[in-house]
Amino acid sequence: MPERNPGAILDLQREARIGLTEAVLCEHKSVEQIANILHQLRERTTPGLLTRLDADKLARLPEALRGELDFEELSRTAFFTAPLRPKQGAPVAIVSGGTSDAPVCLEAARTLEFHGVGAVLFQDVGITGLWRLLERIDEIRRFPVVIAAAGMEGALFSVLGGLVGSPIIAVPTSVGYGVSRGGQLSLNAALSSCAPGVLTVNIDNGYGAACAALRFLNSRMR
Amino acid sequence: MPERNPGAILDLQREARIGLTEAVLCEHKSVEQIANILHQLRERTTPGLLTRLDADKLARLPEALRGELDFEELSRTAFFTAPLRPKQGAPVAIVSGGTSDAPVCLEAARTLEFHGVGAVLFQDVGITGLWRLLERIDEIRRFPVVIAAAGMEGALFSVLGGLVGSPIIAVPTSVGYGVSRGGQLSLNAALSSCAPGVLTVNIDNGYGAACAALRFLNSRMR
Amino acid sequence: MPERNPGAILDLQREARIGLTEAVLCEHKSVEQIANILHQLRERTTPGLLTRLDADKLARLPEALRGELDFEELSRTAFFTAPLRPKQGAPVAIVSGGTSDAPVCLEAARTLEFHGVGAVLFQDVGITGLWRLLERIDEIRRFPVVIAAAGMEGALFSVLGGLVGSPIIAVPTSVGYGVSRGGQLSLNAALSSCAPGVLTVNIDNGYGAACAALRFLNSRMR
Amino acid sequence: MPERNPGAILDLQREARIGLTEAVLCEHKSVEQIANILHQLRERTTPGLLTRLDADKLARLPEALRGELDFEELSRTAFFTAPLRPKQGAPVAIVSGGTSDAPVCLEAARTLEFHGVGAVLFQDVGITGLWRLLERIDEIRRFPVVIAAAGMEGALFSVLGGLVGSPIIAVPTSVGYGVSRGGQLSLNAALSSCAPGVLTVNIDNGYGAACAALRFLNSRMR
Amino acid sequence: MPERNPGAILDLQREARIGLTEAVLCEHKSVEQIANILHQLRERTTPGLLTRLDADKLARLPEALRGELDFEELSRTAFFTAPLRPKQGAPVAIVSGGTSDAPVCLEAARTLEFHGVGAVLFQDVGITGLWRLLERIDEIRRFPVVIAAAGMEGALFSVLGGLVGSPIIAVPTSVGYGVSRGGQLSLNAALSSCAPGVLTVNIDNGYGAACAALRFLNSRMR
Amino acid sequence: MPERNPGAILDLQREARIGLTEAVLCEHKSVEQIANILHQLRERTTPGLLTRLDADKLARLPEALRGELDFEELSRTAFFTAPLRPKQGAPVAIVSGGTSDAPVCLEAARTLEFHGVGAVLFQDVGITGLWRLLERIDEIRRFPVVIAAAGMEGALFSVLGGLVGSPIIAVPTSVGYGVSRGGQLSLNAALSSCAPGVLTVNIDNGYGAACAALRFLNSRMR
Amino acid sequence: MPERNPGAILDLQREARIGLTEAVLCEHKSVEQIANILHQLRERTTPGLLTRLDADKLARLPEALRGELDFEELSRTAFFTAPLRPKQGAPVAIVSGGTSDAPVCLEAARTLEFHGVGAVLFQDVGITGLWRLLERIDEIRRFPVVIAAAGMEGALFSVLGGLVGSPIIAVPTSVGYGVSRGGQLSLNAALSSCAPGVLTVNIDNGYGAACAALRFLNSRMR
Amino acid sequence: MPERNPGAILDLQREARIGLTEAVLCEHKSVEQIANILHQLRERTTPGLLTRLDADKLARLPEALRGELDFEELSRTAFFTAPLRPKQGAPVAIVSGGTSDAPVCLEAARTLEFHGVGAVLFQDVGITGLWRLLERIDEIRRFPVVIAAAGMEGALFSVLGGLVGSPIIAVPTSVGYGVSRGGQLSLNAALSSCAPGVLTVNIDNGYGAACAALRFLNSRMR
Repeated sequence: MPERNPGAILDLQREARIGLTEAVLCEHKSVEQIANILHQLRERTTPGLLTRLDADKLARLPEALRGELDFEELSRTAFFTAPLRPKQGAPVAIVSGGTSDAPVCLEAARTLEFHGVGAVLFQDVGITGLWRLLERIDEIRRFPVVIAAAGMEGALFSVLGGLVGSPIIAVPTSVGYGVSRGGQLSLNAALSSCAPGVLTVNIDNGYGAACAALRFLNSRMR
Repeated sequence: MPERNPGAILDLQREARIGLTEAVLCEHKSVEQIANILHQLRERTTPGLLTRLDADKLARLPEALRGELDFEELSRTAFFTAPLRPKQGAPVAIVSGGTSDAPVCLEAARTLEFHGVGAVLFQDVGITGLWRLLERIDEIRRFPVVIAAAGMEGALFSVLGGLVGSPIIAVPTSVGYGVSRGGQLSLNAALSSCAPGVLTVNIDNGYGAACAALRFLNSRMR
Repeated sequence: MPERNPGAILDLQREARIGLTEAVLCEHKSVEQIANILHQLRERTTPGLLTRLDADKLARLPEALRGELDFEELSRTAFFTAPLRPKQGAPVAIVSGGTSDAPVCLEAARTLEFHGVGAVLFQDVGITGLWRLLERIDEIRRFPVVIAAAGMEGALFSVLGGLVGSPIIAVPTSVGYGVSRGGQLSLNAALSSCAPGVLTVNIDNGYGAACAALRFLNSRMR
Repeated sequence: MPERNPGAILDLQREARIGLTEAVLCEHKSVEQIANILHQLRERTTPGLLTRLDADKLARLPEALRGELDFEELSRTAFFTAPLRPKQGAPVAIVSGGTSDAPVCLEAARTLEFHGVGAVLFQDVGITGLWRLLERIDEIRRFPVVIAAAGMEGALFSVLGGLVGSPIIAVPTSVGYGVSRGGQLSLNAALSSCAPGVLTVNIDNGYGAACAALRFLNSRMR
Repeated sequence: MPERNPGAILDLQREARIGLTEAVLCEHKSVEQIANILHQLRERTTPGLLTRLDADKLARLPEALRGELDFEELSRTAFFTAPLRPKQGAPVAIVSGGTSDAPVCLEAARTLEFHGVGAVLFQDVGITGLWRLLERIDEIRRFPVVIAAAGMEGALFSVLGGLVGSPIIAVPTSVGYGVSRGGQLSLNAALSSCAPGVLTVNIDNGYGAACAALRFLNSRMR
Repeated sequence: MPERNPGAILDLQREARIGLTEAVLCEHKSVEQIANILHQLRERTTPGLLTRLDADKLARLPEALRGELDFEELSRTAFFTAPLRPKQGAPVAIVSGGTSDAPVCLEAARTLEFHGVGAVLFQDVGITGLWRLLERIDEIRRFPVVIAAAGMEGALFSVLGGLVGSPIIAVPTSVGYGVSRGGQLSLNAALSSCAPGVLTVNIDNGYGAACAALRFLNSRMR
Repeated sequence: MPERNPGAILDLQREARIGLTEAVLCEHKSVEQIANILHQLRERTTPGLLTRLDADKLARLPEALRGELDFEELSRTAFFTAPLRPKQGAPVAIVSGGTSDAPVCLEAARTLEFHGVGAVLFQDVGITGLWRLLERIDEIRRFPVVIAAAGMEGALFSVLGGLVGSPIIAVPTSVGYGVSRGGQLSLNAALSSCAPGVLTVNIDNGYGAACAALRFLNSRMR
Repeated sequence: MPERNPGAILDLQREARIGLTEAVLCEHKSVEQIANILHQLRERTTPGLLTRLDADKLARLPEALRGELDFEELSRTAFFTAPLRPKQGAPVAIVSGGTSDAPVCLEAARTLEFHGVGAVLFQDVGITGLWRLLERIDEIRRFPVVIAAAGMEGALFSVLGGLVGSPIIAVPTSVGYGVSRGGQLSLNAALSSCAPGVLTVNIDNGYGAACAALRFLNSRMR
């Protein structure tokens, strides 16, 4: 076999450089690779955030490591040892069209929590029953940052963008079927929104939406 | 050259069979082919509806034929001799997001007019300024059929579908740029609308939307 | 964890607003989320329609809830307690190309039934053996609304559209392989039909086709 | 500049090898390149078939060459000096949905003519007015090979394939708009036809359809 | 439940009309639907051809029916009772690029056999080792019809089309990975072949290629 | 002709509602429609921002209106009468890969200027000559918001995202050819960036990027 | 059943002709087909390289054959009997963005090893933590050929291409989600790289990248 | 207007860093931007290579600059003052399928010439007339690097890859129509070639292919 450098090289300076921790995206990694990374984190006593961790992979991790993980199943996230910072306030609103978007909303919420930032969830305010959104819109307007998750045709982004002046970070979700299968339609709806200045991240990327919100909150505090 | 049958064969029984006249789609036809068809119509004293007729092609038609055409430029439609039937009532609402959708709205209105059916236009009720739609929604609700035209992300279809109980015929328009260029996004938004029972025709197909409305009105009268 | 509002917010006013009940799309929901919604419906003594409910998810629902569900396997639909209204007449023809389209046809039929509307199925009238359709076309023509389901190249929509004057609601199905895999081809065939005024819903969306038929029938009765 | 071999190398043995002449596809060639090839053909006293030759490029060819070309404008084809063989019989039916498909039908007919084979055109037998096709179907059935050209949703291929037992060569045309723009939909309809054994060539490839028919006829005569 | 016509309606006249039997495409059908069709065939003592029949579905058919099926696993085809006609001669060459294309080649061969026509297989003549094809090309040239199956980049179709004068029916296969995953690339290569007159069927459609060959052989014999 | 409401309905409350002015997207509007809107603005003495205004359309506007427009050609923007607010500070960095991205950068800068916000341009810091970016990175890092424009493969977004902690708004541009033609590749690169929290707007949407930056800055000031 | 030639025809002269051995791509082959090929290799005492061999298929091979295979699980490769040549030197650098790209890197390394060529792996030098790449860039620059593997947005190819003068062979990997799912984005990033002269192979094609490197090294030695 | 840095920043160290000069891609640049860059080059007495320069843009450059450009029309390239180095040898074979690929072949040849490297062109060796390629294959085999250009179905790459052991750099061209329009098919054929180790650049990217060849030749000389 060829010469190899030993294991993963973590970007531990990222926190200092841009204020965000490198998350461990578990989806394409083997159980061995994940365990290897957790060992490295433990050696340096660095907390870690794991995303897209299947319950199945979790079960196959060595028991000692598993015991140190705070796992949340719906979002498939885990905190390794303690989160980065104690929680302060809840400056982020997370708004979603339907209950099927819950996993993505929670991935965002957990990422914020890991960085010490709270959030309030506004679920099931899809625009087919417009009254549900209008009833809560004044409350939502008060948040300095709004994360909005929606699948299907993603009309929520445009309605929200016309009613709220805060930065809006759209997270298209892969909820849908037929021509909206996979989230591309909802993504394009966010990008083409008639409402000016709606911003977007990748499909199902609750982690990325949270990181963007953190960039804004960090910039705000400077 | 091979043997050929002489000129186009029109489906003149269509009106009797399904209550709709065959329109002459001029887009892919040469000036000679259009003239040939108009001559056939004149011989049988049958009125005709022309769609997607460029002002340029119109100008190159023989003057005698041109004089018998009632041409409307924005919709690129023409009536050959008189329309099919005198106009009765205005049972169709045509709702659109923005002024850029006007050509498609007018193609629908002209097709209805040719078949003796009136329509009322509600333009510029796009959902970014939601108040514009809400202000007129009670009026729109009273129409037995609603045609809705929108480009970009097509969020209008979903908001309308959640507020109006009448049949809604979405016409996605090719208005947009970047990922909404060409109308596919708006089409998919109509197809994936969270609002139940929204119906769709091809991109920019104002003629088809009007025909669908006519099918419904004809069926209603039986 | 972040603050959350408790459970799903149902749009129970939808029936009053647009004459259609909100269906529970089970595909992207967990068993817990479905159970939660059924409990809400029970508390308010509101009947419910469930779609895309796998036999497997059904089996994992609490037995008490399961006992109140009238489940039909091929269509993957369930009625929670009684349907909305007693059945009256059969004004809808559901026409399909082949036996593989049966699940979609039945989803439409069950949705109509839940709203108290009957339907007659005309299966296996695909156009390769054209005589099968021509034999029954006079019968089909008499229905005030026609739902047509077809996969593959979707030629049925065009032939039907040229022979029948009633409103035609095409439901493209995902039946096919190679370039017709997934239903996009059949959908585009419906949208591009040479027959004027054919209307379309999303791929495999029997529920949506039925809702559109209900909009027509409701509007007709006003 | 780099070393180059002088001009195009024609595959003049193709006729002997597979019974078909190499056509000169003019679309991506400059006027100079076309002239160069014609000079080569003249030197070897070999007749030539030119396809996709714009009237504009034709006008810019040296007058001496232009005089030897038998040009047909609608099909954009030209014969250089005499066609390959005198014409014998008309064993090919060329069937098309609408008058907009005429250029493709004529490219096929001209290619056959160049190889000494006749054809009969059946235009305007699109399936929306089904009677037009049914009226002529017994006549069409008698041809040993059928070429069928259609754009839009391409339903003609399936109806024809269910009624005719001869080999059917579909030529999808780029006629259409919205989702059928460019011919891909019609192509896929031919490929996915429910009628067994329908064959296809590239979009707008009347030349290729004729070559396929020639392969059949040549094979038949052996 | 809605009124339904009883079971599938088979197109039993197809054989008389176009010389080809309707095959039962099992892929999207339930075991019950397949059994129902076989019962109908038995009642009318009509032989049947089944395609895309999984070994798993076969195993779940009633034993009595299973006993009457002549099943071939690699091609996933079955003959119900005897094939249509006794076998006569082998006028079809089936040429393929690699051993991974075997299932498609056999589906074609079995369909021919069911209709009483023999074939010779030339496997593993992919063009990367060009000598393998050149060694056998004179033999292949003598067949009146050639079916060619290839996945990946489908270069076989072009090389073959330049060397053989008989009709060539390309069957693109879904063999490949990355950008050739699913067979679309190989399909497009067949359609765009520089060799004139190459014909194509849908991806993995060995059945359709055989039907096309049968159309040609039937036409030849008239 | 059908009844129509008179002219466009502007969303003049938008500024009060969300802090952003409705821009007039001129791309799909006729000269008459643009003139109509400018007259409305003049009547209400409201300043206006026009985007995607071709020099050609500008020239065809009535001279009186043209004289009141402050037009910038490269960005195709115009201010109608005075901009919204006097300019204060330059809190936005606009970073771009190459000089071909200049039109998009300037559309963003002009939109900011119209709202009274300044910007500093960092052009030609594409990552192939990495030193050009590294030389200026400390300067860029100090801005509270960064807009980054890039076409081709869009690698700039990822490199920037790894080095800068401020919010980053990517504007994919349509600069490129072959597989990067049209900007979709650069858009997807922004969406899939390994750098956490990069945000995106539609292709070539400099206006949208500026609006998003304004949302951030407005929220910051509250 | 039709006549068939016996088993696969291997291109055993390939090594002599172009210096590369034909690998056995196991993905689309049955266990029987793989065994058949191994038997042929054994008879001719020719070593063989197997790629995309699942552990599951391996387990189902006859034990005698399995014993002669040197299998490596992560890369899914196996050497049949001894590799082609003893290993000499390590002229190839294999650089990758993240640990998820390891299977592809190892497929390349194993292919090189089979041909007697060594490689050094540089893993986890993704550009979000740019220092990781810059730290090792001088070392990488010294290799005569560089293979680079990356998924997601593939920005590594461009950064590397701007810093290294050796030939760079990009292997896009299918690592990613949302719009980068499947590797097409990374592939297009390699093709559109602003860095001049970056070369590409198919998605996940570590084998092909190694073969390209071998072509270069062989050419170099002549 | 915002603050801007003055003009383009050229990467003049690129030659020293990776042995390749930055070319000026003129396609998306205005005449003013090109002139600005040429002035910079003149000031530093650095030779420059311009690509995708339309004859029309050339004509609009200031006459002084134009006089210093060595322009070649078919390839749309220009050398500013003298090329980089005097020409030495001709180690590169440029092979193409048809005369329509000439512009791309010449762009590659001119780029090589600018860097002092010669090439030999082998045009019109498309594989439909296979003898044309086989006649010259021994000659082609002797070159240390082969650039191959082909449009349509790109079968040339695979045939060449099976016969030649040198590094092969495929340049897919946009020559074709229907499903091969735009070059994507030819690109995918190169990527999926059954011949091992074929390398690819972007569609129509003759410049990139030449740069890749230069990387090989430079690495070889070290």
